[in-house]
Amino acid sequence: MQLDLTTDAAALTEQLVNIESVSLHEQEIADAVEEALRALGHLEVTRVGNNLVARTDLGRGERVVIAGHLDTVPLNDNLPARRDGDLLHGLGTCDMKGGDAVMLRIAATVAEPNRDLTFIFYDAEEIAAEHNGLGRLAASHPEMLAADFAILMEPSNAGIEAGCQGTLRVEVRTTGERAHTARAWQGANAIHRAGEVLRRLEAYEPRRPVIDGLEYHEGLNAVFVSGGVAGNVVPDACVVEVNYRFAPDRSEAEAEAWVREFFDGYDVTLTDSAPGALPGLDRPAAKAFLDAVGGRPAPKFGWTDVARFSALGVPAVNFGPGDPLLAHKQEEHVPVEHIERCEAVLTRWLTA
Amino acid sequence: MQLDLTTDAAALTEQLVNIESVSLHEQEIADAVEEALRALGHLEVTRVGNNLVARTDLGRGERVVIAGHLDTVPLNDNLPARRDGDLLHGLGTCDMKGGDAVMLRIAATVAEPNRDLTFIFYDAEEIAAEHNGLGRLAASHPEMLAADFAILMEPSNAGIEAGCQGTLRVEVRTTGERAHTARAWQGANAIHRAGEVLRRLEAYEPRRPVIDGLEYHEGLNAVFVSGGVAGNVVPDACVVEVNYRFAPDRSEAEAEAWVREFFDGYDVTLTDSAPGALPGLDRPAAKAFLDAVGGRPAPKFGWTDVARFSALGVPAVNFGPGDPLLAHKQEEHVPVEHIERCEAVLTRWLTA
Repeated sequence: MQLDLTTDAAALTEQLVNIESVSLHEQEIADAVEEALRALGHLEVTRVGNNLVARTDLGRGERVVIAGHLDTVPLNDNLPARRDGDLLHGLGTCDMKGGDAVMLRIAATVAEPNRDLTFIFYDAEEIAAEHNGLGRLAASHPEMLAADFAILMEPSNAGIEAGCQGTLRVEVRTTGERAHTARAWQGANAIHRAGEVLRRLEAYEPRRPVIDGLEYHEGLNAVFVSGGVAGNVVPDACVVEVNYRFAPDRSEAEAEAWVREFFDGYDVTLTDSAPGALPGLDRPAAKAFLDAVGGRPAPKFGWTDVARFSALGVPAVNFGPGDPLLAHKQEEHVPVEHIERCEAVLTRWLTA
Repeated sequence: MQLDLTTDAAALTEQLVNIESVSLHEQEIADAVEEALRALGHLEVTRVGNNLVARTDLGRGERVVIAGHLDTVPLNDNLPARRDGDLLHGLGTCDMKGGDAVMLRIAATVAEPNRDLTFIFYDAEEIAAEHNGLGRLAASHPEMLAADFAILMEPSNAGIEAGCQGTLRVEVRTTGERAHTARAWQGANAIHRAGEVLRRLEAYEPRRPVIDGLEYHEGLNAVFVSGGVAGNVVPDACVVEVNYRFAPDRSEAEAEAWVREFFDGYDVTLTDSAPGALPGLDRPAAKAFLDAVGGRPAPKFGWTDVARFSALGVPAVNFGPGDPLLAHKQEEHVPVEHIERCEAVLTRWLTA
């Protein structure tokens, strides 16, 4: 399928949505995007697997990365795209082919931007982190991500969501001693001992630090609990799996140390960890972008790929069409007005 | 295989052990026991499935049931039987073919007991209650269980364990509201809410009522806990499964009401219930048996088939060779001295 970059961004979104691209099946959409980018002539296009990097090289004083993933979560009886007034419905409309369409429109229409641009279209964002195309590019070609500022076009209601919170998981274990429940005093109940773990979680008061004017909001939640041997046995083990979402003023190591202190006296095992990203709104490129978008930026509570740029020292924000709460839902949709607004803001900022 | 009832009880135990009889595979052992009982001539033998009932009918003033199950738990590389000094090792030695052998010896050697006897050998005790041979006999032929007193030859270290505690299970549920853990304040964590359920369990003080001079010991234990949706979702449901072991001065209804009161404020569902059995040691037949055995009777904490007799108004005790803590273990064994002592006590009591 051939993409028509001369059409408006909403129609282009519809074209992209109608190319199925569930994670690990991005070849067709990557082919179409590659062909469209190469046809423009003014971009240096590199393909690595199903990832595409397209750059201007105008010798500007700043370089900005604009990035979006090409994959979607699995189909849920929500293709092809369907237009209903101002709304475009269908898998990937919100997360995030509306953003991809804006990127392609900017690539096509802003041939001489006032900042050098690096467009990155990547694969496998919706599945396990090891597959993430942006992560793999960062590992194999870190120079391709180098920039003064990065915009990730994930849905953010066409406003700026800055930074992101980190996330880690721990298993908190209690142990006991098995016994027949008819002679329970001969054992020790590990599930009962987990009561204090849950009590601490219930009493937890989230930290809400303000960073660059944005109020983050931490969270500490049991996401799984399991224990038990048989219906007549005092259980000797219980595991509470806890997810800590931490504001970006804490490093992963600080976050882990805090959780271990919180569960002092218990056996705590770290099973998963990803750093947050500071908003970095004090950087010149970020400030100028804030001015161009207008309004108040919001903090990003969930973890996103902006953290990959942050880890490379590149301040990054989320800025894309669509409501993030609709992502991964059967009824996913995007307002056309969001798509148009994002395109207009970027065009204005890059041509001022 | 033919059983030799003229040999001593330990050798007879070994013969019984070497006839494999895992639950629902009792035909061969039932055939052997039936043949041996019928050959005695002085007993009226009835077979119902793989259950055998053998009775004297001498017109005595009292009737005593002596009962034992013929099945075992599954093999665990512990057959054939192996004699090692005073110990007989192997599957079923303790639970409970030592007791079955004593029953067969009494049947063979005490042809004119001072009390009428009903021997019951039954199947499928080690599996779900619906299969239990004694339970099925009680339902289809309750007159066969009629007696003034019953002795269940389950392992009790050749001493008397009287009555038994009841058991019931409930599921205690907490609910909440799902949300992404990055915005946990939009939801409510059901696992955290289970902390109070576990806290109550940890603070629980067991009741230890004294009944007929026996001190029972209740127990209230979480045996399973489960909850959780995904690693990034605030969970909306959690279930704690609780097992209550209650002394026989409480009926099932009273026990259930007590548990519901204990978990006041929570959603409690009863999933399983079996009544306890009062020791009944004040009945004349029981008193005489206590005198014959000597020593102090102990309370039975676990649930056993004595409760079936109790439900029919027949006081019943456990009295058999072997340590109940070895039942169902790979290293199951029985002291020959226990087998001999049980046989001697019963012979003395029934011929005095």
